[in-house]
Amino acid sequence: MAVYTDLNDDDLQRVLEAYQLGQARALKGIAEGVSNTNFLLETERGRFILTIFEKRTDPADLPFFMDVMEHLAEHDFPAPLPLHTKDGSYFHDVNGKPLAVVSFLSGVSPHKPNVAQCRAIGATLAKLHLTLRDFTGKRANALGPSSWKAMITPRLALADYLRPGLADSVEKDLALIKDWRSGLPQGVIHADLFPDNALLVGDSVGGVIDFYFACTDALAYDLAVCLNAWCFETTKEYNITKGQALFAGYESVRKLQADEREAIPALARGAALRFFATRIADWADTPEGALVRPKNPLDYADRLDFHRKAKGAGDYGG
Amino acid sequence: MAVYTDLNDDDLQRVLEAYQLGQARALKGIAEGVSNTNFLLETERGRFILTIFEKRTDPADLPFFMDVMEHLAEHDFPAPLPLHTKDGSYFHDVNGKPLAVVSFLSGVSPHKPNVAQCRAIGATLAKLHLTLRDFTGKRANALGPSSWKAMITPRLALADYLRPGLADSVEKDLALIKDWRSGLPQGVIHADLFPDNALLVGDSVGGVIDFYFACTDALAYDLAVCLNAWCFETTKEYNITKGQALFAGYESVRKLQADEREAIPALARGAALRFFATRIADWADTPEGALVRPKNPLDYADRLDFHRKAKGAGDYGG
Repeated sequence: MAVYTDLNDDDLQRVLEAYQLGQARALKGIAEGVSNTNFLLETERGRFILTIFEKRTDPADLPFFMDVMEHLAEHDFPAPLPLHTKDGSYFHDVNGKPLAVVSFLSGVSPHKPNVAQCRAIGATLAKLHLTLRDFTGKRANALGPSSWKAMITPRLALADYLRPGLADSVEKDLALIKDWRSGLPQGVIHADLFPDNALLVGDSVGGVIDFYFACTDALAYDLAVCLNAWCFETTKEYNITKGQALFAGYESVRKLQADEREAIPALARGAALRFFATRIADWADTPEGALVRPKNPLDYADRLDFHRKAKGAGDYGG
Repeated sequence: MAVYTDLNDDDLQRVLEAYQLGQARALKGIAEGVSNTNFLLETERGRFILTIFEKRTDPADLPFFMDVMEHLAEHDFPAPLPLHTKDGSYFHDVNGKPLAVVSFLSGVSPHKPNVAQCRAIGATLAKLHLTLRDFTGKRANALGPSSWKAMITPRLALADYLRPGLADSVEKDLALIKDWRSGLPQGVIHADLFPDNALLVGDSVGGVIDFYFACTDALAYDLAVCLNAWCFETTKEYNITKGQALFAGYESVRKLQADEREAIPALARGAALRFFATRIADWADTPEGALVRPKNPLDYADRLDFHRKAKGAGDYGG
């Protein structure tokens, strides 16, 4: 949510030339995404989002993310279309950092998605999964179950400081992790489809953005991420009407298998642990008064309470 | 350069209704201006900048600023046009803070303006002065000479800490202040026309923004602000070719009087003191690690060195 890297006149000129964009008509640093610097760029050729990748994204992963977006955009899915430079690369170098340019998509990220929007995002997620069926690239999920323990265990004292008793309950969650993803249908997933990565025009999805966690994983895990991100009314209250809408939207495009449906509570609990893990790591690593305020890990501790009690997909509206 | 106040779904909906803007197509928090929160809003009716005024702007002054922009925009000057709500007000309330909506203007703020751009901004500044001749509103310059001593004197120790000997030379500057503005042609001035408040398309001025320091003052003082802001190559090196271009641009629209030209060195020195004063006050008042990094007051200490030696408008290219 910040502009970490400025783009001076010469940098901008070189970007315009590299991507053959013509003359600039507007350039605004925008508060989008947490880890990278983003600008809205308008030129005589149209509107674009220009991203400078900061330390947090591994440059080796960038071509995969761009290939995913390109595949989606070229198959009529509302993902940003990455542009190529004259030399055929996705990337341009700005002070040693990779920069990419993608097409601008319309829409506003909802703060509190309504039922119709939950249905729409469910359908969009399934469409994303189907559209990527014939995509050949692969990327392991760096934030899969095997990573959670390493992120959470060193911060158990912090967890207990934030909420007495939390260390104990999270340790139990970690002990219960089996890799419930194996055996389920796999494919490329978004893995981070929160409302702030969706652009809505009214109740329709105008765009899905921020593919920088995309990876190969169980498709139903992506759905479980969305249940966590879209269907809680507060951090503690699950809105089953929204859950039903999200499932119905998803299944209007792709039917879930019986084993996927069965795995939903474990997947949802796993997804909550994944966001708890990165948030508590960020919380611990962010100095007080830093430019970016880390997100509260307790939001996911609350969700874990719900998931521990869930018995089946029915508890989620599925 | 930050989004201080978030705009939730309900707030946005109320804004769209109040200003009758139709459905939102995009909303991006943008890094524009230092003290207020700005969003780029696109709706079916067009593109707008939405500003939420934070503590720093006195709400009592806002109608004046809006009236100035409206007068300019309605007289073919590239200023943002403020919109009115259904009730005829410029403002809408968001959590007790005033919000305003103005039209979007094209252009990119230059980091290092070139000679042609200096000429263009000179002409634009004169056009601003002429267009506001028949504007009847008045506002005293809250950051005029009488305010500088109060801002600088308590921070003289800080000045000396930042650069040994600086306290002494700035005290001498303060002792020399006469109100050189009296007697000169007065009118409404922008008072803060830095490159980041200008939007350029190529070498043409597509927009002038951020009228939140506009006030009634000597017209030539506005030109002196621009000489400080546009014509220094570094903080120490004055580019007289750019100065000549800025003067020539200004005088292509409005001729300077002899007394205005004579006052240029004093006005330029005063303008540098004004920015030194607010910057050192901000520097002193900003806690380390704060969200917004204050601008360096030494940039203006360097400019003061130049102004102390200047003998006439000729030294500035005038």
